Amino acid sequence: MKSYRKELWFNTSTRRAFINITPQVEESVKESGISEGFALVNAMHITASVFINDDERGLHQDYKEWLENLAPHEPIDQYSHNRTGEDNGDAHLKRQVMGREVVVAVTEGKLDFGPWEQIFYGEFDGRRRKRVLVKIIGE
Amino acid sequence: MKSYRKELWFNTSTRRAFINITPQVEESVKESGISEGFALVNAMHITASVFINDDERGLHQDYKEWLENLAPHEPIDQYSHNRTGEDNGDAHLKRQVMGREVVVAVTEGKLDFGPWEQIFYGEFDGRRRKRVLVKIIGE
Amino acid sequence: MKSYRKELWFNTSTRRAFINITPQVEESVKESGISEGFALVNAMHITASVFINDDERGLHQDYKEWLENLAPHEPIDQYSHNRTGEDNGDAHLKRQVMGREVVVAVTEGKLDFGPWEQIFYGEFDGRRRKRVLVKIIGE
Repeated sequence: MKSYRKELWFNTSTRRAFINITPQVEESVKESGISEGFALVNAMHITASVFINDDERGLHQDYKEWLENLAPHEPIDQYSHNRTGEDNGDAHLKRQVMGREVVVAVTEGKLDFGPWEQIFYGEFDGRRRKRVLVKIIGE
Repeated sequence: MKSYRKELWFNTSTRRAFINITPQVEESVKESGISEGFALVNAMHITASVFINDDERGLHQDYKEWLENLAPHEPIDQYSHNRTGEDNGDAHLKRQVMGREVVVAVTEGKLDFGPWEQIFYGEFDGRRRKRVLVKIIGE
Repeated sequence: MKSYRKELWFNTSTRRAFINITPQVEESVKESGISEGFALVNAMHITASVFINDDERGLHQDYKEWLENLAPHEPIDQYSHNRTGEDNGDAHLKRQVMGREVVVAVTEGKLDFGPWEQIFYGEFDGRRRKRVLVKIIGE
C-alpha cells in the first residue's frame, strides 16, 4: 500500500468564501502515483468545510444566504461560544451543515467523479492562514 | 491491496425519493472478495445523497417534510441558481444536509453495521437516470 | 495492509450529550500498529453522531440549542416516526446535521489533526447502551 500527504494553504480576503480546489487535488493524485484507492480531503480547521457540489456562482450565493439564515453571524452575543472572545460561533455551525471532509474514489489514477462533481474549500471565518489536508492511500 | 468498483443506476418516478440500497452494496462486498477494508458509497450527482439511517416509512416522511421546510422547492425564483434555467436549487441544499457519501467498514467480508443501519439513496431531483458509486478497498 | 477494529460503548445519563472520544481513538491508533492509513470512526446507532469540532463548553451549548431549534423534540406527535411508539424522531434529524462518521488520516502513527480538531460522540437519544465503531486500515 502507498500513501501520500499534502497540505493546501488558504488565506481568503473575505470572512466567507468558496474556492474550487479540484485542480490541486487532481495534481495530488498524480503526484501520489496511486491508481486505485481513496483520497481524503478535509479541512484542518473547525470553522471551514470541504464539500463537493457544482461550480456555479448562483448556487454559491444561495449557499451563503441559506447558511446565514440557518446560523446568522449577528447578533454575535447569541452564541455562548462568543463569550470566549471569539466572534465565529456561527462559523462552527455552518461548517457542520456543509461538512468537514470528502472521501473520493481514485480509479485508474484519477478522481472518480460524476459529471458535475467539484471539490470546494468552504471558508466561514477567513482572513487568516488555514489548511486543508489531502491524504491518499491505495496502490 | 484489492480494489473493487461498481455503479448503481437509478431513475425515480418522483422528484424526491429514498431507496434502500443496502442489498446492492452487500452484493458488491461479496463480489469484491474483500474481507477487511472500507466501502465508499457516494452519489455521483450533486442533487442526490447517500446516507445511513432507519428503513422506516414514517421517518422518511419526516425527512421529506423537514428538508422541504429547511430548503423549500418553491418559489423557484428564490434561488439564484435557478436563473441558469434549472429548477433544482433546493435539491443542492437538501443534499448538503443529508450528505454525499458514507464510508462503511468491511469486517469478515460483511458491512460492519449497528443494529438498524441501512444505506439509502436520497433523490432530490429525480425523473432521470443518475448513478451511485461503490468503491471498496482492502484485503 | 493491516486492519484494526474496536467498539467504544456509551451510556449517557441524559438524552443529549457530547463526549470527547479523541483519547480512545488515539489509543486505538496506537494499538493498531498502523503508521500510515485512514481511521473511520462512526456511530453504530442512527440517533447518534460522530463529528469533529472544538472542545469548548459554550459551543456545545450552542449546538444543542441550534439543533433543538432545527428539529425540536416536542411536540412528539409532529413526527410520523413517533407513531411507531418511539419519541426520538427529532434525534434521527439532528444526527443528519451533525453526521454519522468521520474519516481521519493517520500519519506517522498519529491522528493527523489541525490545531483544534477533536472527535466527539454526539448523543441525541441516550440513557441506554450504544456503540461507536473504530476501524483503521493502512500499514
